[in-house]
Amino acid sequence: MATAVANGGAAATTRVMSVYSEVQTSRLNHNLPLPSVLRAPFALLDGPPSSAAGNPAEIANLFPHLFAQPSANLAPAHSSATPTHSLKVGVVLSGGQAPGGHNVISGIFDYLQHKAPGSTVYGFKGGPAGIMKCKYVQLTPDFVYPFRNQGGFDMICSGRDKIETPQQFKEAEDTALKLDLDGLVVIGGDDSNTNACLLAEYFRSKNIKTRVIGCPKTIDGDLKCKEVPASFGFDTACKIYSEMIGNVMVDARSTGKYYHFVRLMGRAASHITLECALQTHPNIAIIGEEVAAKKQTLKNVTDYITDIICKRAELGYNYGVILIPEGLIDFIPEVQTLIAELNEILAHDVVDEAGVWKQKLQPQCQQLFEFLPQAIQEQLLLERDPHGNVQVAKIETEKMLISMVETELEKRKAEGKYAGHFKGQSHFFGYEGRCGMPTNFDANYCYALGYAAGALLHCGKTGLISSVGNLCAPVEEWTVGGTALTSLMDVERRHGKFKPVIKKAMVELDGAPFKKFASMRDEWAIKNRYISPGPIQFMGPGANDVNHTLLLELGAVQA
Amino acid sequence: MATAVANGGAAATTRVMSVYSEVQTSRLNHNLPLPSVLRAPFALLDGPPSSAAGNPAEIANLFPHLFAQPSANLAPAHSSATPTHSLKVGVVLSGGQAPGGHNVISGIFDYLQHKAPGSTVYGFKGGPAGIMKCKYVQLTPDFVYPFRNQGGFDMICSGRDKIETPQQFKEAEDTALKLDLDGLVVIGGDDSNTNACLLAEYFRSKNIKTRVIGCPKTIDGDLKCKEVPASFGFDTACKIYSEMIGNVMVDARSTGKYYHFVRLMGRAASHITLECALQTHPNIAIIGEEVAAKKQTLKNVTDYITDIICKRAELGYNYGVILIPEGLIDFIPEVQTLIAELNEILAHDVVDEAGVWKQKLQPQCQQLFEFLPQAIQEQLLLERDPHGNVQVAKIETEKMLISMVETELEKRKAEGKYAGHFKGQSHFFGYEGRCGMPTNFDANYCYALGYAAGALLHCGKTGLISSVGNLCAPVEEWTVGGTALTSLMDVERRHGKFKPVIKKAMVELDGAPFKKFASMRDEWAIKNRYISPGPIQFMGPGANDVNHTLLLELGAVQA
Repeated sequence: MATAVANGGAAATTRVMSVYSEVQTSRLNHNLPLPSVLRAPFALLDGPPSSAAGNPAEIANLFPHLFAQPSANLAPAHSSATPTHSLKVGVVLSGGQAPGGHNVISGIFDYLQHKAPGSTVYGFKGGPAGIMKCKYVQLTPDFVYPFRNQGGFDMICSGRDKIETPQQFKEAEDTALKLDLDGLVVIGGDDSNTNACLLAEYFRSKNIKTRVIGCPKTIDGDLKCKEVPASFGFDTACKIYSEMIGNVMVDARSTGKYYHFVRLMGRAASHITLECALQTHPNIAIIGEEVAAKKQTLKNVTDYITDIICKRAELGYNYGVILIPEGLIDFIPEVQTLIAELNEILAHDVVDEAGVWKQKLQPQCQQLFEFLPQAIQEQLLLERDPHGNVQVAKIETEKMLISMVETELEKRKAEGKYAGHFKGQSHFFGYEGRCGMPTNFDANYCYALGYAAGALLHCGKTGLISSVGNLCAPVEEWTVGGTALTSLMDVERRHGKFKPVIKKAMVELDGAPFKKFASMRDEWAIKNRYISPGPIQFMGPGANDVNHTLLLELGAVQA
Repeated sequence: MATAVANGGAAATTRVMSVYSEVQTSRLNHNLPLPSVLRAPFALLDGPPSSAAGNPAEIANLFPHLFAQPSANLAPAHSSATPTHSLKVGVVLSGGQAPGGHNVISGIFDYLQHKAPGSTVYGFKGGPAGIMKCKYVQLTPDFVYPFRNQGGFDMICSGRDKIETPQQFKEAEDTALKLDLDGLVVIGGDDSNTNACLLAEYFRSKNIKTRVIGCPKTIDGDLKCKEVPASFGFDTACKIYSEMIGNVMVDARSTGKYYHFVRLMGRAASHITLECALQTHPNIAIIGEEVAAKKQTLKNVTDYITDIICKRAELGYNYGVILIPEGLIDFIPEVQTLIAELNEILAHDVVDEAGVWKQKLQPQCQQLFEFLPQAIQEQLLLERDPHGNVQVAKIETEKMLISMVETELEKRKAEGKYAGHFKGQSHFFGYEGRCGMPTNFDANYCYALGYAAGALLHCGKTGLISSVGNLCAPVEEWTVGGTALTSLMDVERRHGKFKPVIKKAMVELDGAPFKKFASMRDEWAIKNRYISPGPIQFMGPGANDVNHTLLLELGAVQA
């Protein structure tokens, strides 16, 4: 069932001695198609001067050298237009894992091998800290090979450090100079791409030749815009979660006695939950952005779930599947208020067993606190982070909701309004999805992103994010270019200073994916329209499907 | 991404109106191969008289009509030897879901359609209760079609009722007579097959023509013997869990800071944990049968895990993956003693907050109780079943172990024996695996089991379990027959009476799968030999692989 992976190189990788499964091995040798514009001689065509997503004056102040630079697109050209000189390029993975990261690196590597012979690629180890400490490995064909089309970030690993202080920028500069870097590719989320742009600006301001290109990574799906229609990893992660959800749905229908509450990774935005809902048709899916927009309370959410459970019981269904975004309670204003008050009280007062301390809470917060299940109350009071703050992230929202729904159902039963049976089962799908082998879509998309990053550097660009578009068409027809990172930015006021940010792309309540979901959820709630997507296939039917969010956002097809 | 499934029949199924994913649709039309002996005229050849797995005299007493009957094998024969008369057959699913159940039913149905034209098949709804209450649906091609190669048991659903009392046997008799049943196929685990044999004996003793054939179902893998080399569903469930484990492993290696404690379904035996370990090479896998054989305590298990974590920290690895069977604590004698004492005390005494009640525990039990994490102590005392008993099944063993390991590591850190970082992440993989779409192996195996059950009934057999062998060879070469259920039985003394049981097949510590695991685990513990099996493929490399347990037990290949 498993074969050893050949390794001709001396460079030590964590995978050199590994044994690979048959699927892993077959993916190693899977050929990656390229957009046709990347397969032939091309030229880079600049667009018009760009602006910013908001507060252009402030962005211009923060990025005096880069602001207003055009985005650019690759177009077929005579071979004389394509550069051929060799480059020294560094690459770094930043932040949490997303399926396909290795393919971005493979894409950069292959571009330089094919189009800029004699080039050198350095992989910075352990994220941005690797740049600052000049910890790197030089990539070779043998080193890169075992990671092709494989999940994980373990080729060079990632990290969550940021290059922020003048000292840290100086360290990055030292590394750039030491390695004589022509370019650096930063593979990361919104923060990392903002950081990439700051670094591009810094190098430009110091007249250092090192150019910086970003690549859009995050399973959360919240780094996207018109020019960058998707972040990589979202497709694979959603399909892995949807496989599991589909299986649980068939189990729910077969067993007929459990309500499965499935919490899905994704704190800041609910794209994953929405996409999984579109793939699987659960009875209920809670979208954080809607909860926030409607200023719903925890009681509202509980009642919404309970109402549907009661209706289903009347129809004879005492089972169901409910999807919940990990970040749900971050979207509920009253919970935020409670947490803030708790942090204040816990910092200064003694929590007495008799509960006198609770009188320090505002009446509404007190009411909410009493509404919470006892286990959650205790967790809030006892488990605190090193700063003494309540650990919201540790709350198992799915278990909390099960408990609250249970209480509400008991109340209704006593009132004669509910005669069903309720048993909740909790699930959290998170780590399972961040490092799966990338789907064909993510594998191709990442390879193109990396190849494009190489092309942008080769053409002397900096401060752009690699942009591959027309993603619902066959790969050959994908468009390739780079978008000015400053054009995606706005500012936020933090500690009295303007800070540039690429605003997270939240679920748009008037966007096509949410509207599609909203138009169908009442039917899904009462009738059972479960879909089981099954395991991700690399060959055969469904293997090249694009996810619903992308399809709907690009308006290509009605899913 | 989804297409509607055609439904020509009037019979209402829960799937009629469903929308199917592309993978589901493609599996619907996937052609199932048959063992060559089932594709041509055959005869059934009886073997020698059989005995019992133990206490043959008692088994003979319990099954006077069936005891000693021979097992039988299908062999090619002249077409005149093969029966052609039509039959009326019932089929029932019993107990927990396992991938492939629908294919067993499809196999029975297709056998009768092809070899016994004019036959009728009734699907009893909701398990054995459906037999007793005569609740059934008549199967038609249109009714069966949407379930081919699909996961779940929702075609006719299952149940956990048993046919035990004289009244219940009478009800089954009434149904058999009312529907004029020639045969009944019981698809279930060890208990259900024992029950099937009791029913076969009962019908025979009353001169009722209804014959009963069993089929081996359970993801737990604990219903198997020489003649029945595997229970269906085990292959698929293990591959689904292994996909997730492999993903978590790549995440662990990429992130470098988490120990993932993965609890795997399977209370009675640890086959699933062992198979997943062979597929993925975790740093640690605890096998319940070994813990029991070595009479290990919870402290022993904690120390074993902690020792490896300390060794890994010295090597610079502060991450890892640990597999734990769901039933672990059932294998630890001291825990059983503690539970028994707790149940006794809780039934009669008041649990005072000061903890005076603890003095009623034997010293060893008191020590164990104090060793347990506080959350588990509280759970044991507070959450009790309707009979007032402690709910062992509700204990989240993986969280308990994380907490105990944490405490032990803190102790060692204070003693200067450990300088690493430890963060535990808990997972439970269970419901995700019971209803996945069956692998090619399970799809084929189940179809052959069902087809064989049809053939056994057609040849007038009763009290046999459908037996398909030579499973590591191509499907054409699989052997087909039926094994006398009485030959698999022993007796247990319960409530002063002998009760027939098919003994659960536990992990054999001198069996090939465990020996293979034991020979490699020290290396896996320290070096990282993770394998990521990836998602189950229905086409291409790996799609037809057999699991390690089966390969090793059949001695066909060194995995």
